[in-house]
Amino acid sequence: MKRYQALAEDVARSIREGLLRPGEKLPSVRQTAARRKLSMATVFQAYYLLEARGLIRSRPRSGYYVAADAPRLPPEPEAPSRPDGESRPVDVSELVFEVLESAMARQLVPLGSAFPSPLLFPLARLGRHLASAAQHLDPWSTVDDLTPGKLALRRQIALRYRIDGLPVSPEDIVITNGALEALNLCLQAVTRPGDAVVVESPCFYAALQALERQHLRAIEVPTHPRDGIDLEALETALQRQRPRACWLMTNFQNPLGSAMPDAKKQALVALLARHRVPLIEDDVYGELYFGERRPMPAKAYDTQGLVLHCASFSKCLAPGYRIGWAAPGRFAQAVARHKLTGSLATSAPAQMALAAYLEAGGYDRHLRRLRNTLAVQQQQYMEAVARHFPAGTRVTRPSGGYFLWLELPAGSDALALHRRALAHGISIAPGPIFSANRGFAHCLRLNYGHPMDARVEQAIAMLGRLAAL
Amino acid sequence: MKRYQALAEDVARSIREGLLRPGEKLPSVRQTAARRKLSMATVFQAYYLLEARGLIRSRPRSGYYVAADAPRLPPEPEAPSRPDGESRPVDVSELVFEVLESAMARQLVPLGSAFPSPLLFPLARLGRHLASAAQHLDPWSTVDDLTPGKLALRRQIALRYRIDGLPVSPEDIVITNGALEALNLCLQAVTRPGDAVVVESPCFYAALQALERQHLRAIEVPTHPRDGIDLEALETALQRQRPRACWLMTNFQNPLGSAMPDAKKQALVALLARHRVPLIEDDVYGELYFGERRPMPAKAYDTQGLVLHCASFSKCLAPGYRIGWAAPGRFAQAVARHKLTGSLATSAPAQMALAAYLEAGGYDRHLRRLRNTLAVQQQQYMEAVARHFPAGTRVTRPSGGYFLWLELPAGSDALALHRRALAHGISIAPGPIFSANRGFAHCLRLNYGHPMDARVEQAIAMLGRLAAL
Repeated sequence: MKRYQALAEDVARSIREGLLRPGEKLPSVRQTAARRKLSMATVFQAYYLLEARGLIRSRPRSGYYVAADAPRLPPEPEAPSRPDGESRPVDVSELVFEVLESAMARQLVPLGSAFPSPLLFPLARLGRHLASAAQHLDPWSTVDDLTPGKLALRRQIALRYRIDGLPVSPEDIVITNGALEALNLCLQAVTRPGDAVVVESPCFYAALQALERQHLRAIEVPTHPRDGIDLEALETALQRQRPRACWLMTNFQNPLGSAMPDAKKQALVALLARHRVPLIEDDVYGELYFGERRPMPAKAYDTQGLVLHCASFSKCLAPGYRIGWAAPGRFAQAVARHKLTGSLATSAPAQMALAAYLEAGGYDRHLRRLRNTLAVQQQQYMEAVARHFPAGTRVTRPSGGYFLWLELPAGSDALALHRRALAHGISIAPGPIFSANRGFAHCLRLNYGHPMDARVEQAIAMLGRLAAL
Repeated sequence: MKRYQALAEDVARSIREGLLRPGEKLPSVRQTAARRKLSMATVFQAYYLLEARGLIRSRPRSGYYVAADAPRLPPEPEAPSRPDGESRPVDVSELVFEVLESAMARQLVPLGSAFPSPLLFPLARLGRHLASAAQHLDPWSTVDDLTPGKLALRRQIALRYRIDGLPVSPEDIVITNGALEALNLCLQAVTRPGDAVVVESPCFYAALQALERQHLRAIEVPTHPRDGIDLEALETALQRQRPRACWLMTNFQNPLGSAMPDAKKQALVALLARHRVPLIEDDVYGELYFGERRPMPAKAYDTQGLVLHCASFSKCLAPGYRIGWAAPGRFAQAVARHKLTGSLATSAPAQMALAAYLEAGGYDRHLRRLRNTLAVQQQQYMEAVARHFPAGTRVTRPSGGYFLWLELPAGSDALALHRRALAHGISIAPGPIFSANRGFAHCLRLNYGHPMDARVEQAIAMLGRLAAL
């Protein structure tokens, strides 16, 4: 992010948060430049940007003022979901595939995509490490260095756990073909067909699909859009329905963006330990936080080896390489064996390239830049939604990740909106794909992982008009 | 293979096949050089090699003679296996893992390994294609070019099917994380937990493990070490036990090395079509034939879309890259969806490198060299077994692949041999890991995919002594 952009975001935040009120005068350009140690030109650039976004107005010979009609953010959803609490077989795949397949064409405005813009990643630099890895591949490593994955890479991953204070060692880690394989393997390791598994409501459709293909039943538990699964409701489900496992996203849940506070994670782990129920923790967005420090995974509080932590590099460093991992606690051997019998090993060159990249340093620098970019884009998308969506729309304000969750006014039909949007060259992720019982008919997920530009602005405007129909 | 080696192999074959009999005089070095258009030095080198292998003797001032005690190959196993015909849940994994994990250490003589020597593959050349692919990775392809895999690679694979006369198109192919993932996905696409699946007897342990993790029952059907599964027995099983699928290796089956003649494959496909039972065809060794032309897969005779053909580059080109595929006939969409929900996509750089390598040409040249090497190694290993194993040992003579299947004299205990061999730094694959009912107690699989040298010869000699205990 350039300096003028950073300044503009600071001011925008002050306006959103009410520190600067409509009509109020901004500090002069000269004052701001002096206080911030910036050039006047930089401050002007920031103010021009804010003016273009409709947040401030200049009055000739007087200075800049907060616009009286500065876009206000829509309210957040306040209520947790209210699933019926039944355990049921899962049968969502047909709908999910229909939606996903229709939304894959490259020419669509990818508001329904599950991926951020690939241009946000250091693919050229990774490519250089890959090229070098290719030249130095030890032929024997292709034979005897299979499951659980390259030691060099497991070491780098373990190091990052250690920095966060988690006592995870290289031998606790199984490298997988992306986080999705890790999650599937963990699920296989702790369940048998017919078992029930707790998920959030709404929950990531891939979790539902994984339950469906493994012939498991889903128990959807009420989940708050801000701080995640409701622990009381979870306890009730544990007592009444004896699920075999939980599959939760503790940080920046997909689709809600909810994040469990650390104390709540600690309580979650303790609750599950009392019931001896393993937690499959999908933490693929944990590195994409906008706050001061990485939110802990629930695994940080696990003393029983009951948390199977899964993550990947696909969303924060290396899309397309398909490198993820599980740190499955006491289930490490079982997960490794499922990996061995399910797909034997993970592509060696990709593992080596990532290990070399991580060893060389620079990952954290990249992550800082990525987080800043996503935080800015979140604000820009929220403002665009505020400008264009009908009154009564509620929008989450996640503290990380790249998804907004929208509740449209009651009676809205997100599946119909999805079809109308497609006809206008726009994809969205409609609410019903995030639930085994087709709930969330009036909700949708928007991806803000792509830079805001005129095309996106117009797409959001179009969506807003279609939503108001 | 060098010229002198080729000549030595020709002569060795003539001796084995009885064209040259014990005590018979070989053509003189001068004659042979003239007839073969070789230098005399090359012929001498070949004769020295044959002498060292005990196949010929020199008599001063007289020339070379076939040794009176030239090693004769052990007899082949003649009887098909006789499993009990029951369908049973599979519970082999613990034993298989114990054996495989103990056999993985790099310092062992890898006679029990499932892989040929990685030095047989053009890894440096592949590395150059990988390096170039890394530089030219289109970032957007990491997002919208997921399942079913890179079109450029699917095109190259389809081309090879077309050359063999199979009407397989790029859109019929799903790229997977090695053949093992392809096989697992196909199995998921056509079965549900509790179903029974026909396998060969003995059969590849990974097939048994796949059945086990998917909670399926195995029906082991009698299989002949030369031409594969017994079709009459298969028909009986189809009628009586209503299996939901067959999983067979039609070419150079692991562990037997059996190959179904083309007419038998045709009859197999017709039989299964009558019963509407899908065939999961594991054809990972099909390119490693020693005859004049590639043996057809059963899929060549499939008119109903009931054959799910699975193969990979791991055994013939690119170990460690983990690139395989399925051509699942009418189940293509189901397999693609299982891929999407199971691991999303296959590593992009590895796919691009293989596509570029195949486009550049040279794969067939590599394969010819590889086949020659394996054919020579097979003879060398068979001779070593003949020299060192106890009388009564039978050995298969596969026409491709890199496995020998040994039947030791009745009463032998291959699991005990496995443990004794490990103590001597040698791995083998004992028979019981190839059967759901722990049959084949007196059998073992030997890998001849590693160059024959003094260390291997000594290991085979040691195995022979241990087998005679």
